[in-house]
Amino acid sequence: MESTTSEQRKLSRSWGSGRWLTQSQPLDRTLGNLHIQTVQIILTAIKQQRIPEGARMPSTRAIAESLCISRNTAKRAVEILIEQGVLASRDRSGTYVITSPHQEFAEDTSGDHDDIVDWPRRFTIKLNSEPELPPARSTYASFLYGQFDASIFPIGRWRECERSALSVSEVQNWGKDVVDEDDPLLIEQLRSEVLPRHGILARSENILITLGGQQGRYLVSQLFGGSETISGMEHPGMPDMARMLDLSRTQVRPLALDEGGVIVGDQMRGCDTVFLTCGHQCPTTAVMPLERRTALLEQACRDDFIVVEDTFETEIFASGKYPPALKSLPGSERVIHIASLSKLIAPGLRMGYVIAHPSVIAKMRALRRLIHRHPPGNNQRALAIFIERGYYRTFLRRAQAVMSERQDAMAAALRRHFPGADWRHCDGASTFWMKVPDGVGAKALAASAAARGVLVEPGARYFHREDDRDDYVRLSVSSIVASRIENGIRFLAEAHRDGACHI
Amino acid sequence: MESTTSEQRKLSRSWGSGRWLTQSQPLDRTLGNLHIQTVQIILTAIKQQRIPEGARMPSTRAIAESLCISRNTAKRAVEILIEQGVLASRDRSGTYVITSPHQEFAEDTSGDHDDIVDWPRRFTIKLNSEPELPPARSTYASFLYGQFDASIFPIGRWRECERSALSVSEVQNWGKDVVDEDDPLLIEQLRSEVLPRHGILARSENILITLGGQQGRYLVSQLFGGSETISGMEHPGMPDMARMLDLSRTQVRPLALDEGGVIVGDQMRGCDTVFLTCGHQCPTTAVMPLERRTALLEQACRDDFIVVEDTFETEIFASGKYPPALKSLPGSERVIHIASLSKLIAPGLRMGYVIAHPSVIAKMRALRRLIHRHPPGNNQRALAIFIERGYYRTFLRRAQAVMSERQDAMAAALRRHFPGADWRHCDGASTFWMKVPDGVGAKALAASAAARGVLVEPGARYFHREDDRDDYVRLSVSSIVASRIENGIRFLAEAHRDGACHI
Repeated sequence: MESTTSEQRKLSRSWGSGRWLTQSQPLDRTLGNLHIQTVQIILTAIKQQRIPEGARMPSTRAIAESLCISRNTAKRAVEILIEQGVLASRDRSGTYVITSPHQEFAEDTSGDHDDIVDWPRRFTIKLNSEPELPPARSTYASFLYGQFDASIFPIGRWRECERSALSVSEVQNWGKDVVDEDDPLLIEQLRSEVLPRHGILARSENILITLGGQQGRYLVSQLFGGSETISGMEHPGMPDMARMLDLSRTQVRPLALDEGGVIVGDQMRGCDTVFLTCGHQCPTTAVMPLERRTALLEQACRDDFIVVEDTFETEIFASGKYPPALKSLPGSERVIHIASLSKLIAPGLRMGYVIAHPSVIAKMRALRRLIHRHPPGNNQRALAIFIERGYYRTFLRRAQAVMSERQDAMAAALRRHFPGADWRHCDGASTFWMKVPDGVGAKALAASAAARGVLVEPGARYFHREDDRDDYVRLSVSSIVASRIENGIRFLAEAHRDGACHI
Repeated sequence: MESTTSEQRKLSRSWGSGRWLTQSQPLDRTLGNLHIQTVQIILTAIKQQRIPEGARMPSTRAIAESLCISRNTAKRAVEILIEQGVLASRDRSGTYVITSPHQEFAEDTSGDHDDIVDWPRRFTIKLNSEPELPPARSTYASFLYGQFDASIFPIGRWRECERSALSVSEVQNWGKDVVDEDDPLLIEQLRSEVLPRHGILARSENILITLGGQQGRYLVSQLFGGSETISGMEHPGMPDMARMLDLSRTQVRPLALDEGGVIVGDQMRGCDTVFLTCGHQCPTTAVMPLERRTALLEQACRDDFIVVEDTFETEIFASGKYPPALKSLPGSERVIHIASLSKLIAPGLRMGYVIAHPSVIAKMRALRRLIHRHPPGNNQRALAIFIERGYYRTFLRRAQAVMSERQDAMAAALRRHFPGADWRHCDGASTFWMKVPDGVGAKALAASAAARGVLVEPGARYFHREDDRDDYVRLSVSSIVASRIENGIRFLAEAHRDGACHI
């Protein structure tokens, strides 16, 4: 124990009461984090020399009383200041102010001084941050797409695989910064278990692991986009794809569709790349027949464009009923295949992959490396183990059965409650694309349905903004139990009847 | 059981031997995945009608013998073809060829036909994919930076947190696609436990979770870069930062350094942004003193530029001995603070964050959303729990002690084996920056040391490529046990003596 000098004793008498704290700016209780605000108050007092170097701090009880905070909050604040070297604790004699460079702390670093820096002027990219879907609140029936479905998530098996990925020897494999590499076990599982389901034979240099399908789209749009290039895009089509092409300043050419997906022919001539969801089209769910796929690849070769095949939701499509992936057909050299791996397991995991020519993969890898180096190693390893143990296959079979049941329930409910309505759906797709009957606006319908506890997505965002289309809704069964579908659609129909009355 | 017709019986006699398989192109055993190649061989045979629709397939034993593969491989191939709907199995009577659209499969979809598409002509961004470090092989001593150190990874506690994040209720939180949101629990833990260590008070709208520090750099370089803008960058400085600025076509101005880091003053005038590692400079480890930090922020305000504070390795720096972060000082409104969260725990996890003005965070969030939506939810939740339970704090204390011991060992070894050499290191940094004495080239030294089982990084990549500097090495203690440092540096000195003899 260090002895306290008489000088220190004198100081401790003057400052120990904590009265100096009451001269501070009061705490802002709406801001939260009272202990950090307490830290700031004490730092400010030190800076303004309201409490000098060498002085003994008030007890945590006195600090708590002076600032009307709990004693625990005061304790945490003092601990932080000790850790920062502003205060030092001496056994049994209390806590003291010591010299510290930290006395220059800003009083408020929350950075909300909007008038100081003109941020919007400085941004060099165009990018709007509009929220696009209402957040899925507690509700009776959500027909929104892409939500997580806890009822089919194989939690026990996934937990087992994460645990296996955390064994001492496995951690050695994924714990390090591998710069730009992928987990070799996951690549191997893709080659031997996943890709054969889609008829694709690939070497490891043809494969890149991505953070969901989204990252595949982004990498391709950056790698092949630019103001000098033209990209064809389905219309209606994927809203995020349109934004990515905007971001890379690519000229976008809307491509017309029919019931077989995008129409092959003149409209694609002159494109450098075309982005297609031919597995089933987003959002119309049209499946491109084999003959058209073959014709498309022939045209791509003749007119020298690149085809980006975006299989955003065809994980469960490999049951022989569907035409094969473009990437498995003759002429596939100019196809870049983008896929999701975690949409069904848990979208929050963010796993996907790209299959392409080795020189495309090498370039995408270099770009991914600059963006964030590599996807998290533990998740890659856990997923690899999940596939290796056969759980992925079993899970897909189960998901197929569940989705199929829901689709049947949905089709029946739509026929019953929206008789004669024009809706599209292909067997296997988790979404339905419905024209809202009787001239009712889709946005008004969605709002009125939400008030009844039913969430649906207006289709406007799949069209060009200028078109201002308000006549379609997209209905998904990806995260709703079958038993609620009938009632959910009934409530939607009631909301629709109300809307029709007001026209 | 379906009865077999006499027609089918006849077919089965003709095709069941598997002789038709031996007419196929032989398997390429260097390519691996023999079962997929077997699938391709059978598909090709069906397409070329060497085995017709309705025929009974040979037994897996006969397939195995015909192709010289194991019976298990043959079985897997047949299973895949059944799953794809090309073959169908009939109880007890065998497996039959049925009609399938898949007969159009490409024979080789590995896409290695380099002559068909001129890929390099199509890439719209400049980006080289040069590998930069030798892969860390099994070796006596690795002084490379950023590798995973299993000896300090808190495996038991991390495993506990991942398990907690996998409870049924937690999975509900992170399993879904949250579009562009961050885990609120992780944000809360950053605000209350991590940021106070650096003196930073932030609201949740000031924070974005990123995939490591790297993603923070990328987002900033995209958001503020462009051919019309000028960015200041330390020289020598971070190689990836230079590449990112190249990628966004930003004009780069090299900024001169001294022992206090970047020199404040004229050289920054006219910059739109400056990218600084003032916590300690990469690679020289210079720490910017408080007075210079204050002067820097004053100049930023006067000359109206943005300061990007990249704290790539200051997680363990918050012990009061160091000047406060720029983001905690008056004038911090124009500071964008980039940090890593997983460098010490396990770089493979890829976790980091950015602190900035809300309008900057909103824009970065919109861009991140296009790139990959959000960081994987399970890792965010596990890390949040790790911090919440106090494990992060304990871990940092332990890492501090371990790193400190290693730094002492390194300094002692350098003094002993490279007496009089010019090396720099600041207390707390995991790296040392050494000028190679006696005119020996750094690359030659690294190669010669590697032959002795010692890995070091030549410093050339931190300088402009045109400078062709070959006089520095970077030595890290981030993943080497203290007991090997002395010998490792001794071997390095031996390699150096050999090199000096040859001059």
